[in-house]
Amino acid sequence: MRTQVAIVGAGPAGLLLSHLLDRAGVESVIVETRSRAYVEARIRAGILEQSTVDLLRGVGLGERLDREGDVHRGIHLQWPGERHHLDFADLVGRTVTVYGQTEVTKDLGRAREAAGQRIHYEVADTRVHDIETDSPFVTFTGPDGRAERIDADVVVGCDGSFGPCRAAVPNPQTWERTYPYSWLGVLANVAPSTDELIYAWHPDGFALHSMRSATVSRLYLQVPNGTDIAEWSDDRIWDALAERLGHGRDGWTLTPGPITEKSVLPMRSFVQQPMRHGRLFLAGDAAHIVPPTGAKGLNLAVADVALLAPALAALVDDGDEKLADAYSETALRRVWRCTHFSWWMTTMLHTSGDAFDAQLQLSQLRWVATSEAGATGLAENYAGLPIGF
Amino acid sequence: MRTQVAIVGAGPAGLLLSHLLDRAGVESVIVETRSRAYVEARIRAGILEQSTVDLLRGVGLGERLDREGDVHRGIHLQWPGERHHLDFADLVGRTVTVYGQTEVTKDLGRAREAAGQRIHYEVADTRVHDIETDSPFVTFTGPDGRAERIDADVVVGCDGSFGPCRAAVPNPQTWERTYPYSWLGVLANVAPSTDELIYAWHPDGFALHSMRSATVSRLYLQVPNGTDIAEWSDDRIWDALAERLGHGRDGWTLTPGPITEKSVLPMRSFVQQPMRHGRLFLAGDAAHIVPPTGAKGLNLAVADVALLAPALAALVDDGDEKLADAYSETALRRVWRCTHFSWWMTTMLHTSGDAFDAQLQLSQLRWVATSEAGATGLAENYAGLPIGF
Repeated sequence: MRTQVAIVGAGPAGLLLSHLLDRAGVESVIVETRSRAYVEARIRAGILEQSTVDLLRGVGLGERLDREGDVHRGIHLQWPGERHHLDFADLVGRTVTVYGQTEVTKDLGRAREAAGQRIHYEVADTRVHDIETDSPFVTFTGPDGRAERIDADVVVGCDGSFGPCRAAVPNPQTWERTYPYSWLGVLANVAPSTDELIYAWHPDGFALHSMRSATVSRLYLQVPNGTDIAEWSDDRIWDALAERLGHGRDGWTLTPGPITEKSVLPMRSFVQQPMRHGRLFLAGDAAHIVPPTGAKGLNLAVADVALLAPALAALVDDGDEKLADAYSETALRRVWRCTHFSWWMTTMLHTSGDAFDAQLQLSQLRWVATSEAGATGLAENYAGLPIGF
Repeated sequence: MRTQVAIVGAGPAGLLLSHLLDRAGVESVIVETRSRAYVEARIRAGILEQSTVDLLRGVGLGERLDREGDVHRGIHLQWPGERHHLDFADLVGRTVTVYGQTEVTKDLGRAREAAGQRIHYEVADTRVHDIETDSPFVTFTGPDGRAERIDADVVVGCDGSFGPCRAAVPNPQTWERTYPYSWLGVLANVAPSTDELIYAWHPDGFALHSMRSATVSRLYLQVPNGTDIAEWSDDRIWDALAERLGHGRDGWTLTPGPITEKSVLPMRSFVQQPMRHGRLFLAGDAAHIVPPTGAKGLNLAVADVALLAPALAALVDDGDEKLADAYSETALRRVWRCTHFSWWMTTMLHTSGDAFDAQLQLSQLRWVATSEAGATGLAENYAGLPIGF
């Protein structure tokens, strides 16, 4: 088959790209190794930056988001004995919205379905070819076992860190950092015990009280790498959360509830550049991974795609290479800003076992919570820079 | 002999403390292992925070400082290809003043001499005794070889990290961090090639262009620990400075000149708490060491002493223990703020050899230089918090 833009990956990056291209009159085809049900159920991020919300709303994807998303003015930052609210709305005039990646993906899936988007789910052996020519193509095996080929003007890799696109770029520069801790994440069918997220530094390790909705809580505990989930009974998890989040202090209580999902998530930073090679472009996790502490992964993918869609439209419709040529460098400015911010939030909040580090962290947290400049610095990064920064 | 406050150490902390105590009507005696000439010639810091300048001026030590000190609105922050000026005056309404520690010490020395301050220079075997009683005393051997004893109400250790006072505190908590690099520092008889300090990140290592006066430049290069100064000829030093500071870029040139002093300075962070045990109080380097990157060492000593003088006056004159009891905790808030800031400036600007660190540093520098919140955060820490913070 033939299209203008072949997109590898039907996660939020790939789906949103096809949506933005469609609005610009550019045709695309998506291939995805997983099933639609799998992609839509995959638990990932849950915090949308102001810019992400504005973008989704502006392209007709805001209806359910506006109805069901929970606007947060800021976050709580705490350490033993103190809890401070950082009000992003006051500090930088922007908010964040709690709305799960699963929901964004479902909204996108429905919109693309309604628009007749061609998406090939459950394909295998996806490969990209001839990306250094003007006639790149993608081959894959369909769910029926048939070999398929998509000829396109450009190919976009929205296929994450383990997909074939990233690996198709010859001799990229890469940077990677693994962290000496993981997150034990749980979903629980219980109303959140907090109005807004609590980021808690604690000598036992970091804890985060997040949420997905008025009835579903999302909670995380810092655990050592290689932690066996079997060692963490539900009771042990709730006890550790209560201790680290400060249950019982100043009248605040953590309400436990049935845990419906639990998993251990490793944390790493990764950047590959350039984000373009010939007629292959990379967006989202295909080019960069951030640890989840700053809630940047999904938002960064959206920012990439928001930059890439007009660049590709100009390229394939008008033969104008200017934006396409600028894409990698422009996108990487935000990527490195978010990579730094995610590293900073991570290393400020997770205990390393070193006593001097702990004091530096506490001094930093005190400053961030009590200095307007410190609080504003966190807020402007967390609530998100404008698209195109 | 007998006095109200026995002070160990006649560096800027000890001299200023005796000065402030004198103004409060409290008598003190100082002992110092070095000669007055040595103390006054010792090359150390050169940047005074606004609060330090205000304090010195307010206690009659501002005359020469106002005449010869060079007020700087901010600093230049640079990395290859970019130089940004951070204007502290615009950002936080405060400035810093270039005025060498040697000059502060001379001014203090003259003022104390005029006031008839008793200072015993070139003593040996200084020891503090009975600090857990209300009758502590200090013993030492005078330059004539005679054993001496000072009985006092309180003893203050302003005797640095290697003096006897710090070690006299039983079972303190201590934190220490050594850094994997040192500074090669030079004094040169040449007009500075810059109006204000240049802090330069460079792949070869950090460089700093500072100054002492209109005719004396102070310059630093990051070098590996254990560097033999003999390997660094004057020519090699100027070549490295020219490269790292960006000689020839955008018309800026570095003018070399005769080097009059060079030395390799190791860098470390150190904090000991509490800063009081019984009738022994610690101030300045006796309780904490910061790496020099944030220009905090001297300023932090001044802030300690500014807090300690009224606390001791209330204690020895009125028997009021309140401020004395609060001294350690109050002082340590600022100590940890400055310890964190000095660590942050150091780790942001010195190359570690790790490629990911380098990208994080550059991303951080770009943000600090271009975000108002980022610039304000650096400025409020560098220009200095109010005394009593």
